[in-house]
Amino acid sequence: MNGSAAEGEGSPPDGHRERLARAALTRVFEPGDERGGRWLREMGPVELMRRLTGGDGPAQRLEGASATRLAGCRLRASGVDPGRDLADVSAIGGRFLCPGDREWPTQLDDLGDARPIGLWVRGTPDLRLWALRSVAVVGARACTPYGAHMAAALGAGLAERGWVVVSGAAFGVDAAAHRGALAADGATIAVLACGVDVAYPRGHTELIGRIAEQGLVVAELAPSAHPTRSRFVMRNRVIAALTRGTVVVEAEYRSGSLVTARSAQRLGRHTMGVPGPATSGLSSGVHELLRGEGTLVTDASEVAELVGSIGDLAPVRRGPVLPRDRLDTVAARVLDALPRRGTMSVPDVARAAGTGADETQGRLYELHSLGFVEREGNGWRLVVTPRPEAHDAPP
Amino acid sequence: MNGSAAEGEGSPPDGHRERLARAALTRVFEPGDERGGRWLREMGPVELMRRLTGGDGPAQRLEGASATRLAGCRLRASGVDPGRDLADVSAIGGRFLCPGDREWPTQLDDLGDARPIGLWVRGTPDLRLWALRSVAVVGARACTPYGAHMAAALGAGLAERGWVVVSGAAFGVDAAAHRGALAADGATIAVLACGVDVAYPRGHTELIGRIAEQGLVVAELAPSAHPTRSRFVMRNRVIAALTRGTVVVEAEYRSGSLVTARSAQRLGRHTMGVPGPATSGLSSGVHELLRGEGTLVTDASEVAELVGSIGDLAPVRRGPVLPRDRLDTVAARVLDALPRRGTMSVPDVARAAGTGADETQGRLYELHSLGFVEREGNGWRLVVTPRPEAHDAPP
Repeated sequence: MNGSAAEGEGSPPDGHRERLARAALTRVFEPGDERGGRWLREMGPVELMRRLTGGDGPAQRLEGASATRLAGCRLRASGVDPGRDLADVSAIGGRFLCPGDREWPTQLDDLGDARPIGLWVRGTPDLRLWALRSVAVVGARACTPYGAHMAAALGAGLAERGWVVVSGAAFGVDAAAHRGALAADGATIAVLACGVDVAYPRGHTELIGRIAEQGLVVAELAPSAHPTRSRFVMRNRVIAALTRGTVVVEAEYRSGSLVTARSAQRLGRHTMGVPGPATSGLSSGVHELLRGEGTLVTDASEVAELVGSIGDLAPVRRGPVLPRDRLDTVAARVLDALPRRGTMSVPDVARAAGTGADETQGRLYELHSLGFVEREGNGWRLVVTPRPEAHDAPP
Repeated sequence: MNGSAAEGEGSPPDGHRERLARAALTRVFEPGDERGGRWLREMGPVELMRRLTGGDGPAQRLEGASATRLAGCRLRASGVDPGRDLADVSAIGGRFLCPGDREWPTQLDDLGDARPIGLWVRGTPDLRLWALRSVAVVGARACTPYGAHMAAALGAGLAERGWVVVSGAAFGVDAAAHRGALAADGATIAVLACGVDVAYPRGHTELIGRIAEQGLVVAELAPSAHPTRSRFVMRNRVIAALTRGTVVVEAEYRSGSLVTARSAQRLGRHTMGVPGPATSGLSSGVHELLRGEGTLVTDASEVAELVGSIGDLAPVRRGPVLPRDRLDTVAARVLDALPRRGTMSVPDVARAAGTGADETQGRLYELHSLGFVEREGNGWRLVVTPRPEAHDAPP
């Protein structure tokens, strides 16, 4: 109505109003609420909030909602203070991303009306660039030592190949995957089913803090929100959509990890599974996946080979996709620090560029997504761009 | 020449001459020799032996053989005594089967010119009927306790579902599969890479003897022949061709079991693999198979479901394929012994039919292939044939 539809999701948020409205809506709708997503798409965040917080009249114009449902939304909407949420997240070094933002991972648009309303983020790296070259490693909380070993090995091996490891910060496989990536000085993203300022599970307070420092912590729920069963389930669709593929390491029948894997499948992402003994109940869900569409993988190179073969998300290994002079100054400094030949370790790059170690590492993974650099073992090197004209040019 | 081509493989051997010639040729050509197979197809066994044992002149008419090769064949052919071989095998209760024989497993014809020249067989059951409902379970000799457990469980589980378990009588997975089937009073076939009277490996003398008593021992090599590396490799194609599918339980890269699996694939049979820990070298070959065409299986029911779905080899579970009055008298007696409703154990059937226990069991598996009976746990029951006309008939 009255022109506010033009403020819908397709256009970049040109003002603080839209951002505030989206931040508010992350407290009104549960993650993955497709009805809410449709209203948002049809009328934009500002108009939607106006209808939810206005008198009884306008709210009735929200089509398809039951009176009870609507009353719940209106109750929630009446209590929000998005300005304070934004300030709280800013105070812990975080930010709130909206569709249309430069850093918005556009692959989330594949979720349609179930796309997150916005993303609360902690950590300095660029989420869009990191997500372009990311793989999810998920699995059972109560995993076996074998499962933990495989998750850690995959986390480390993917990190060493320049891939960003995405998981859910849960006990068991998730934690092992994050830790494997961190131990290899790699990039990792934790997608939480609660606010980015809530350490859940509590035993992972330190791990989540470390990921927020060296990597990214992401949530679609507003600060201080607590996890629920359905929030865990809906969180899995974000992990699936954000990444190029999902590897399941140990999962029982009907486990949450299989939900992630099936979401990935529906979204056209690669779904992979690590086999285990046929006698292990903790592998039975994985085996079921592998008897269907899933691809069996036994190490990080097989995962990288598979997800690296998709060319639709980012032109990987084909040289830069962005002119060098369009990089921001910090990224450009990190890039300039690398030698013309051979590799350089992160501390050496940081010294040469005059940047912090974590920031340098984050930038290197961003530059990797952009095709400027690649990781080799513990060092980074410039990607050599083939120059076809040199071949044909006269001597 | 001179009409002997009409005695070729397609027609049943109408005389002792052809059988003697084929028996002799199993000593002349190595298993899977396609050149020899082509000569055999083109001129029939009698004429082929005539040319190999005649003067220098006619043998030269064997097209495409080097002089050295031909000399080797002629040397072998000159020393054979097929009558004695047939007598030797007969003395240990065995027989020699030729293409065209009623008991010949016609699915071996899929091997083309690499089809066995004939098969030396020990054991009373009907090879053709047993092979119609058979599955191969193969794998590493030096398997882990996990591999041995899985092979034994598959052997027993397949036997309990009325499937005949085929393997190679080797140490490790093969032996566990045979033993699993035998322990479940099931049917099992050992395909050897040596003569059926040679116990190889020596440590399996008792096992092979037991299979010859309760099941079938099969070889394309003549009595007393010893195994060689290439004979093991070529034996695998017989296992693959004889069965509806091959399950690999633990196999390293480049192992013989993978050769069997790939033969099965080429022949259009199902290839299956049992997963194991990704950290186990003994599962790496299986995982490679499962990353390709192989289907992951974790128990006998999954195997049975897969191989049972092929309808091209035998019309299973659809009632008898042969009129009851065309059964031989022993089979008919065994069939008559079964109750109209419910199951009966093998000893009870044997008592009622007046047949020996092993013979009874063998006949029941034959009757299973023919669709008359089915196994349920430790008992056998008549297959209830639907009578469509009863439904439509007036009351």
